[in-house]
Amino acid sequence: MKDRVVVLTGGVGGAKLVKGLQQVVPGPQLAAIVNTGDDFEHLGLPVSPDIDTLLYTLADLANTQLGWGREGETWSFMEAIRSLDGEDWFSLGDGDLALHVLRRVAKEAGRPLSAITQDFARQWGLELSILPMSDDPVATWLETDAGSLPFQRYFVQQRCEPRISAIRFEGAASAVPAPGVVEAIATADIILLAPSNPWLSVDPLLAVPGLRNALETRQAPLVAVSPLVGGKAVKGPTAKLMNELGLAVTNQSIADHYGSLVDGMVIHEGDASPPGPPVLVTNTLMTSDEDRRRVALVAIDLARQLRH
Amino acid sequence: MKDRVVVLTGGVGGAKLVKGLQQVVPGPQLAAIVNTGDDFEHLGLPVSPDIDTLLYTLADLANTQLGWGREGETWSFMEAIRSLDGEDWFSLGDGDLALHVLRRVAKEAGRPLSAITQDFARQWGLELSILPMSDDPVATWLETDAGSLPFQRYFVQQRCEPRISAIRFEGAASAVPAPGVVEAIATADIILLAPSNPWLSVDPLLAVPGLRNALETRQAPLVAVSPLVGGKAVKGPTAKLMNELGLAVTNQSIADHYGSLVDGMVIHEGDASPPGPPVLVTNTLMTSDEDRRRVALVAIDLARQLRH
Repeated sequence: MKDRVVVLTGGVGGAKLVKGLQQVVPGPQLAAIVNTGDDFEHLGLPVSPDIDTLLYTLADLANTQLGWGREGETWSFMEAIRSLDGEDWFSLGDGDLALHVLRRVAKEAGRPLSAITQDFARQWGLELSILPMSDDPVATWLETDAGSLPFQRYFVQQRCEPRISAIRFEGAASAVPAPGVVEAIATADIILLAPSNPWLSVDPLLAVPGLRNALETRQAPLVAVSPLVGGKAVKGPTAKLMNELGLAVTNQSIADHYGSLVDGMVIHEGDASPPGPPVLVTNTLMTSDEDRRRVALVAIDLARQLRH
Repeated sequence: MKDRVVVLTGGVGGAKLVKGLQQVVPGPQLAAIVNTGDDFEHLGLPVSPDIDTLLYTLADLANTQLGWGREGETWSFMEAIRSLDGEDWFSLGDGDLALHVLRRVAKEAGRPLSAITQDFARQWGLELSILPMSDDPVATWLETDAGSLPFQRYFVQQRCEPRISAIRFEGAASAVPAPGVVEAIATADIILLAPSNPWLSVDPLLAVPGLRNALETRQAPLVAVSPLVGGKAVKGPTAKLMNELGLAVTNQSIADHYGSLVDGMVIHEGDASPPGPPVLVTNTLMTSDEDRRRVALVAIDLARQLRH
């Protein structure tokens, strides 16, 4: 495959598609642009949940049971934190800490998140480009019936229980795409939106003006893989959030949300097609490497069809 | 026991004596003033080896096999650090990290080391006062045949192998004793020097002018417990260092080094007494709680004799 493929992605679901792409697109031709709206500082350490999930998934280090963190993780740090009455609402695994501690050391030395992320990827033998959407801080905030909450407080501490009425991306309007992001989009042959939560994981990317503009002026076809499977989200609060926003939990709602940005959609077999964009249907539940490879190939196939 | 006891201490050997004192002196009447010359920053985290060893020892969390760190420690962090090509010459255990991460958070919030240390001690149910010698940074540096080395580079990275020609305590001359240090010495009924390395662990304390002055103007008798056992140090580079400084490895060299500061000494049975100060003899090898209690009681006993 000679096509240059760019995928915009958030957390676990998106990482699965990128893992599928990793099997079929050579590293130098694959770039993942990653949501950083969930990033936050915890216990003085900079945590980048979506970047870390992608790194762990691609390096075969991910904890597939938990859906976050590292496989075979130990928890001595958290036990000691609790014994010292430290903040324990967000769990940092012992091995996982290494990323955050080294990220902080590198940040203090003046390295931007994009360079740090690429360093980590190279250390773990990953050949694709993993690009944070921006080196500038962007923070996803939720207006809820439990007050205004930063993303991790909503997602982890309150287990997505509050009802969301509005979402904002603090810092996005003045954030500049990270080095390589605009170039990757401009020179891509195929652009994909991973099956991540459109409102919480993809919208932060689209809220960065330079990134949105690059997408709007792109040459390549853009295919979204729907995060819905049988009218539900595989994981996370997508369906609950759509309900709270007064939307039907359908691919049409997803297509309407992305609007003219999307040229085509991959949806789960048996689910209703949206009336707008061209669609390919496959089993989008990605539980095995074979599944991930298949969904990646179907998305690429649709993009190729749209190009001709 | 109503006597107020102050003990000046360094690392492992000193911590054992303090653990003995903890058994016989009520917490509110016991203060340990701890060397911070070994403190340094590693991977962006502030590490206080002697304070931490004392905290772990007194809270029954110490790794008695290794002689440092926590019992039952896990090492996932270090493995991940190595996989990311991070600095790995100094090992931070997973549980141990909690102290350093929380210490950094508290320092960033403006809390001094003395307050942070006392917080940790209280969280672990310790009732004595654990006082860093100073809240100001003091760094032990060694002039060696391998160049000028900060303490941990000499001690851990180079395993005490370089020959030492001189020792200096950077920052000591302008360091102020931590809150409570001068008061504890001034109001003590008994002052002890723990069996820590006189040159590397006790001298940094004596190099803080306000602390030295408090000792020189004290009311209470001061008893040193010799770190030598059968003409050797139980652990660490004391004997090697004494050789390099051209000193006989004897209690007399220790007594000469402390000079008029010391009113009496506790030495190991069978070792030659120094000709100067009054001496009590006991088995100073502290392997059991019973040993630690006995050595503590002998030191207190000698101090009481000297007072009358």
